[in-house]
Amino acid sequence: MAAQSSDSQATAKKEETPLTLITKTPEEGFQLAVKLSRKGVTTTQKDKNVLFMLREVYSRDPDALIACSQVIAINFQTVAAANNYWRDQK
Amino acid sequence: MAAQSSDSQATAKKEETPLTLITKTPEEGFQLAVKLSRKGVTTTQKDKNVLFMLREVYSRDPDALIACSQVIAINFQTVAAANNYWRDQK
Amino acid sequence: MAAQSSDSQATAKKEETPLTLITKTPEEGFQLAVKLSRKGVTTTQKDKNVLFMLREVYSRDPDALIACSQVIAINFQTVAAANNYWRDQK
Amino acid sequence: MAAQSSDSQATAKKEETPLTLITKTPEEGFQLAVKLSRKGVTTTQKDKNVLFMLREVYSRDPDALIACSQVIAINFQTVAAANNYWRDQK
Amino acid sequence: MAAQSSDSQATAKKEETPLTLITKTPEEGFQLAVKLSRKGVTTTQKDKNVLFMLREVYSRDPDALIACSQVIAINFQTVAAANNYWRDQK
Amino acid sequence: MAAQSSDSQATAKKEETPLTLITKTPEEGFQLAVKLSRKGVTTTQKDKNVLFMLREVYSRDPDALIACSQVIAINFQTVAAANNYWRDQK
Repeated sequence: MAAQSSDSQATAKKEETPLTLITKTPEEGFQLAVKLSRKGVTTTQKDKNVLFMLREVYSRDPDALIACSQVIAINFQTVAAANNYWRDQK
Repeated sequence: MAAQSSDSQATAKKEETPLTLITKTPEEGFQLAVKLSRKGVTTTQKDKNVLFMLREVYSRDPDALIACSQVIAINFQTVAAANNYWRDQK
Repeated sequence: MAAQSSDSQATAKKEETPLTLITKTPEEGFQLAVKLSRKGVTTTQKDKNVLFMLREVYSRDPDALIACSQVIAINFQTVAAANNYWRDQK
Repeated sequence: MAAQSSDSQATAKKEETPLTLITKTPEEGFQLAVKLSRKGVTTTQKDKNVLFMLREVYSRDPDALIACSQVIAINFQTVAAANNYWRDQK
Repeated sequence: MAAQSSDSQATAKKEETPLTLITKTPEEGFQLAVKLSRKGVTTTQKDKNVLFMLREVYSRDPDALIACSQVIAINFQTVAAANNYWRDQK
Repeated sequence: MAAQSSDSQATAKKEETPLTLITKTPEEGFQLAVKLSRKGVTTTQKDKNVLFMLREVYSRDPDALIACSQVIAINFQTVAAANNYWRDQK
């Protein structure tokens, strides 16, 4: 889930804006869920070189990919509830 | 969960319509939960060739199939809540 | 969770009625949760012969059985909430 | 989670009373969560001899015991919500 | 999660008071979540000697420790909701 | 998730302030979710030397890192709900 590599510079910048759970669209909400899932990984392993090395492994391991998708799904529950499921927006 | 193969062209098109959590029926809601689960996988591993190769492995691994079903179940909770469980529709 | 075998004909028929989350009783709700869990598996692996073969393996693997029960529990949360926990029915 | 053995006769009888999520106390609610977790296992593997044999294995496997506790926790969320957390009862 | 050893006497006594989900503070709520997680384990494996032996193993296994923390987190969701997140208490 | 090392002194102090689920910002809420996840681990394994040793292992194991992120995600659901998703704050 620490999938950033070439765009890590940009991501680092983005993380300086304060975290909020409110997003304009479901798509942005899903991307926030991905970001929260990565944040859960980088909190435990801060070394970007280690993270990059591990990513080479788990991005080719089906079990790990499914587990990543599960963490994203749990975070998406939180983000979707926070945004009242973007119901008013249709 | 990256189960598309022959119909990947069609899927690619569908993904261009903006994501919404609101669906007409529970059946469509379940299909959306499947789509969100795949999206969680393809976010981490974008290479379609790798995904297709891995799929050959995990679609024959009972543990992986059950894990897929679990991610779908979590996403279906989100979609069902968003649609107020399609209660008004009966 | 693809536990149907002899009664697969009957199940196939049942699946043609449109999916709804509303059930009359908690027992029917639990059976629906089982059905949703199977649907999550068959969405990823459609080949009934493969499913039947895998079932021989995982129905004798305690870890897989517990994992099945977990997916059913997650889907039962959704179904129970949809039916307002069948509270009005007592 | 198919922990019944000597008392399986009694359990069989109990299962004939229709399933309800409403219980008088949190303790009974927890026992119902255990029952639902077992039901999720026996739905997939119906053969009591196999279940008993597997139980000998997983009841001595820490990972399986923790996984059992997790399924019970998920079902307890459902039962506790159904009973409005037994708040009126204190 | 069957972490009691020297203080098992005291714990045994506590378990005789009827189970309630209502606690005075978040800290007590967290301890209740731990207790519920242990209860889920001891329901499946009642033999205290086996539990103690297994504990020696899993308390040194990172995967098992993380899994324990997950079960506690699920039970804490239930307890926190039951207490309306102790919001009135600040 | 027992990631503290050099700053363990500071953390020890912090833990003496009573636990509350209410935080000012989503960022603080996420850090609280991390803290709750660690608390779930240290409840089961109290020996800091063992924890530190295990951490060397699991912080380089992709599966464990993803599992950590999952526990944090579950605890973040609780904290976010407790704070009404910090909606009033924007």
